Amino acid sequence: MRSNLEIIQECDNFPYPDLTNNEAYTKATAPLWLFFLPDDPEPHGFLIQSVIDRMPWTSSFRLDPHRKEVHLLKAEGRKNWQAACNEAIDELLDLARAQNAFPRLGRKRDEYFPIVGAKFDIGIERSAMSLFGIVGQGAHMTVYTRTSTGKMMFWIPRRNANKSTYPNMLDQAVAGGVATGETPFECILREAGEEAALDEEVVMRDSVAAGTVMWWNVSDEKAGGEVGLMNPGVLYVYDLEVGPEVVFKPVDDDIQSFHLMSVEEVRDAMRNGEFKPSCAAVMMDFFVRHGFITAEDEGDYVEIVSRLHRRLPFWLSPGR
Amino acid sequence: MRSNLEIIQECDNFPYPDLTNNEAYTKATAPLWLFFLPDDPEPHGFLIQSVIDRMPWTSSFRLDPHRKEVHLLKAEGRKNWQAACNEAIDELLDLARAQNAFPRLGRKRDEYFPIVGAKFDIGIERSAMSLFGIVGQGAHMTVYTRTSTGKMMFWIPRRNANKSTYPNMLDQAVAGGVATGETPFECILREAGEEAALDEEVVMRDSVAAGTVMWWNVSDEKAGGEVGLMNPGVLYVYDLEVGPEVVFKPVDDDIQSFHLMSVEEVRDAMRNGEFKPSCAAVMMDFFVRHGFITAEDEGDYVEIVSRLHRRLPFWLSPGR
Repeated sequence: MRSNLEIIQECDNFPYPDLTNNEAYTKATAPLWLFFLPDDPEPHGFLIQSVIDRMPWTSSFRLDPHRKEVHLLKAEGRKNWQAACNEAIDELLDLARAQNAFPRLGRKRDEYFPIVGAKFDIGIERSAMSLFGIVGQGAHMTVYTRTSTGKMMFWIPRRNANKSTYPNMLDQAVAGGVATGETPFECILREAGEEAALDEEVVMRDSVAAGTVMWWNVSDEKAGGEVGLMNPGVLYVYDLEVGPEVVFKPVDDDIQSFHLMSVEEVRDAMRNGEFKPSCAAVMMDFFVRHGFITAEDEGDYVEIVSRLHRRLPFWLSPGR
Repeated sequence: MRSNLEIIQECDNFPYPDLTNNEAYTKATAPLWLFFLPDDPEPHGFLIQSVIDRMPWTSSFRLDPHRKEVHLLKAEGRKNWQAACNEAIDELLDLARAQNAFPRLGRKRDEYFPIVGAKFDIGIERSAMSLFGIVGQGAHMTVYTRTSTGKMMFWIPRRNANKSTYPNMLDQAVAGGVATGETPFECILREAGEEAALDEEVVMRDSVAAGTVMWWNVSDEKAGGEVGLMNPGVLYVYDLEVGPEVVFKPVDDDIQSFHLMSVEEVRDAMRNGEFKPSCAAVMMDFFVRHGFITAEDEGDYVEIVSRLHRRLPFWLSPGR
């Protein structure tokens, strides 16, 4: 049985800087390489040494082993050097796949995710995000209904057994990655239609944006891909209360079944490690916001709330 | 007109450690002294040099200028050395008042706050918390009602003009410091009765615990006390929807008036700097949780959510 803090730690498992003993954080950050884009002094990702060693770097990249930096170079003589950056990353990953440099990289899919904090539009294919340690963005909506006595019941899907990532684990009713060119709420609308067959009008009218959950995760075996990669992440969270007339059924291969679960059943499933870790964090945040976890019954309350909202390493506000 | 991020920064105004340029954080933390209790390797507060210099330290304390540490010593020959710790702090502060070491310290009040993270019960009087840079704990409840068309309206008090701290500024309807021996919700119940004359049964039934807001503040002129002190803080936040039959009126000298304000009016007041900074942070968190600020209309969304939940320097989970 995991404690609530241990549940969060499965997702947010990278050490924190500490006032009096910084050893764990320093040891964990020291071997990381930083990823840079042209004309931009801020880094946008973390690469680990084994990725540096195995990646078939092309002439579009410059490696600085002394400073542990990878720089995507500005294409000489190309007016649209930004487009060239996109091409350089694609070319590199095609080459990596051709050489089978990362056996667990997964097939190429036409899903591009933005490089967070970049000063121009640049995307990277979904499966390669973790290799560069770029902040992943998703949007998750917790969907619930109420019994005749007002008790909250959650619509919870179970992922299919054949999923490459987190098979058989519990998830949010509506969840997906925020792709290049869409906003978090557009992602919710798309996923609500594609995966949950929810009426767009209902989602537009009744869903409530409720903040974000953030973490810094180091990938493990359950994630299905390469192990030890840096996965800082943010999920934009939404709540949706639906009436009894809404019944969820699997509409594609991602989900094997939907379950209507009480607060207590969701809590037990979290404690037993049945939820995908990022989805457990979203449920925990929901429980905090709706008073199902309180300072009175949870000694780690304040620590949990801060761990659910970790400040991301590469999220730069325009106003900063 | 302040941006939402600037509003948060008025409360959370201490620098953060940064991946590539740690200068501001290092410069800000370097001159701080750490405060230690007996038999405990973890620090519990930050003192600035001018407090170290002016405090009339008694023999109950040992100063280590090399390590910049203040140690409250374990009383020799006292079986209940924990009680002696409480007495030593009281004695020190009485002496400081007698010598007028801190002209803006304020009068002694019989309100004791716990030293966060301590392994035994130890309190320090409210007005002296900031001198030791101990994490302050409060509980704030945002109270709202709905118009006949469902529009949310907030009950907002204006602090009295003669308050020593943040005179004339807007506040939360129910707000107070969590004193020694009470839980956050007990604080809400006490303050709801004392300051807002709310029916305890209504608060018990309808209030919703909704998480916490945390920051690391350095005191400025508006706070009314000494300037430049370290004030890490946590507020336990609660929401309460009331019916039209509930009307707020000032019941003591702290509040001059109550106002029923719309989302837009609250937003404008925040932008104009009319809210006490920590109360503005609580309102901002409410707006985030209830979808009045979204990723679509706020470029700093993720940064704001993380800044509202800063990981505190001295909050140690039992399980850590």
